[in-house]
Amino acid sequence: MLVKERLFTPGPVPLPPQVIKALGQQIIHHRTPEFTKIFFQVREKLQKLLQTDRDVILFSSSGTGGMEASILNFFSTGDKVLVINAGKFGQRWRDLGKTFGLNVIDYQIPWGETYDREKVESIAKENPDLKGILVQQSETSTTTYHDINFLSKVASSLDDCLLVVDGITSVGVYEVYPEKDGIDILVSGSQKAFMLPPGLSILYYSEKAERRLPKSNIPKYYFDVEKETKKQREGQTAYTPAISLIIALNESLSMMLDEGIPQLAKRHSILAEATREAVKEIGLQLLSKSPSNSATGVYTPEGIDGNQLRKTLLDLGFRVAGGQDHLKGKILRLAHMGYFDFNDITQLIAGLEMALYKSGFNIELGKGVAKAQQVFVKNI
Amino acid sequence: MLVKERLFTPGPVPLPPQVIKALGQQIIHHRTPEFTKIFFQVREKLQKLLQTDRDVILFSSSGTGGMEASILNFFSTGDKVLVINAGKFGQRWRDLGKTFGLNVIDYQIPWGETYDREKVESIAKENPDLKGILVQQSETSTTTYHDINFLSKVASSLDDCLLVVDGITSVGVYEVYPEKDGIDILVSGSQKAFMLPPGLSILYYSEKAERRLPKSNIPKYYFDVEKETKKQREGQTAYTPAISLIIALNESLSMMLDEGIPQLAKRHSILAEATREAVKEIGLQLLSKSPSNSATGVYTPEGIDGNQLRKTLLDLGFRVAGGQDHLKGKILRLAHMGYFDFNDITQLIAGLEMALYKSGFNIELGKGVAKAQQVFVKNI
Repeated sequence: MLVKERLFTPGPVPLPPQVIKALGQQIIHHRTPEFTKIFFQVREKLQKLLQTDRDVILFSSSGTGGMEASILNFFSTGDKVLVINAGKFGQRWRDLGKTFGLNVIDYQIPWGETYDREKVESIAKENPDLKGILVQQSETSTTTYHDINFLSKVASSLDDCLLVVDGITSVGVYEVYPEKDGIDILVSGSQKAFMLPPGLSILYYSEKAERRLPKSNIPKYYFDVEKETKKQREGQTAYTPAISLIIALNESLSMMLDEGIPQLAKRHSILAEATREAVKEIGLQLLSKSPSNSATGVYTPEGIDGNQLRKTLLDLGFRVAGGQDHLKGKILRLAHMGYFDFNDITQLIAGLEMALYKSGFNIELGKGVAKAQQVFVKNI
Repeated sequence: MLVKERLFTPGPVPLPPQVIKALGQQIIHHRTPEFTKIFFQVREKLQKLLQTDRDVILFSSSGTGGMEASILNFFSTGDKVLVINAGKFGQRWRDLGKTFGLNVIDYQIPWGETYDREKVESIAKENPDLKGILVQQSETSTTTYHDINFLSKVASSLDDCLLVVDGITSVGVYEVYPEKDGIDILVSGSQKAFMLPPGLSILYYSEKAERRLPKSNIPKYYFDVEKETKKQREGQTAYTPAISLIIALNESLSMMLDEGIPQLAKRHSILAEATREAVKEIGLQLLSKSPSNSATGVYTPEGIDGNQLRKTLLDLGFRVAGGQDHLKGKILRLAHMGYFDFNDITQLIAGLEMALYKSGFNIELGKGVAKAQQVFVKNI
């Protein structure tokens, strides 16, 4: 029987028709007033999205490139930083920090949990020379949300400490306003709530962070923030940019701003709540104690192999993500960030129920769907 | 009157319909057998293109990222290297080298000229500890071709010296076979003869270069060649790749291989010869004493401002590039790499003649076109 494949992975996420249309066009040259006009529109829209008048710059790289730029430009070798390491991407902050010679305090947190406030406070007290706190606002590998406001207060209480936030799966999912939230460096990536193919990273930095730029002693060239900022203020980039992605970003940013950021965040919150309520109703256990609105992680039921269940789901038309490292084969991650509406979620939950049924799990079909519907009818 | 804009800039270059179609599609996930299959096809085609069984790896970055990777992975701080600095991109090798602590011998050559063999030989003799010779095979800023074979011999004659070639506008224009040519590191980029939007860089390295990998002491993370090689052998990438560009690369590589590399190189050579003969016939002077087949640089005639002439050309439908730095306003660069046939060139030359006529240049219309036609009828 015909089955259409649907993407419910936490990046890449489905592209809206407007984006597909923008991508499927003849190329334009970047050293032209035409491109500069689009580039300035993108800049302005990014500033609106993040509610800032400061620079928001782009790199032609995946999100990891933006993370690397955060280390290379705002820190120096030997700088002591605290990494909130609660998953695969927390590890990436640690590895990046160590690679470039930072003195990393690696605060390891069990996957699926968030940080302990007292622990963070005590680390800060013992290390008043902390130069940075590095965190994922949404840790994609464990679908966990880390509160930023508390960390911002801790960072501010110290002498010269930046709050560095990987917002790759939080920007466009939550209301993320770095100035209001006290974020000094914020990184995001194109293939998440920006609804684009991968290949662009996005970087905001605060005035406090900017003062670090001339002091940083780590060599940088491709990811040079000062050089890019200067060029991008003129509507250009230091090196040939990913033109087609920037043109498509102009489209997806319009969609995001037309919806409005509070409404965008509300939609994600409702989709996430419905997904969580539905999977709990089905009898599955949430992976995260502090679940993110970008994706929902669930343990697969005992006796059912996660990889097998994902295969069954795929046969039924749903591509979802599994677990990484020690969670391989043990969890599913169901994404609901970006171009998703509530009907996508009821469809997904119905598919998940059928996949579990076919895997021999004791399930009353439609029960989870009904739960999701209840969340939706209350909110739409 | 209706005028259609045509792109004759040395990158980005026009996209073929096959590529546009591949780009304008719904995204697929990269951690899938479907993507891995495409990725392996791309790898194999790149190997065929370069006639090698060795790894050819991709980075999601513009070409400069690939250049940076060449420095970060195959050299160590203090390594002495010779940079053939004959233009904007030669300067980039120098700047990259200096940024990451190499000991750079900056052999500056007037723009539009190539290196002097005796000079290179004498530098090599005086510096037997050279660890690398860095060059552009085609220096895009001056449309100049630098012979690689001689440099390869010089590098081989030394104790442990790598020949590092920026092939960003030579791969797909010339027959570039790194093993046969004695190239140790070869970089290219997607938006040139690969006929794609910018956002992907391509890297080949020799066995001799590979032996440097474990020894290099420069920190690297995003541009880590060993890590990428390992992942890419498995049909994956270390970080989320520019999926849509890789899928489109699969298409454009098929086009290149279907044409055949010798024929591809021959076509570029004919288009370049026709362009050069035509502009000389018109009475313009070539910028380069060693012209490249990727683009042709010409001085604008005395009394005619280059920027004004470019504007006139644009009004007539042709976007060409101007000069950079001290050549600003003094030259035109007419590209003929990638998706161009001989009719594109006759059209361009006719347009150039009309633009010169309108700028008050004393010209017999059709004379340059006829010259180009003569080159073509002899060769097609």
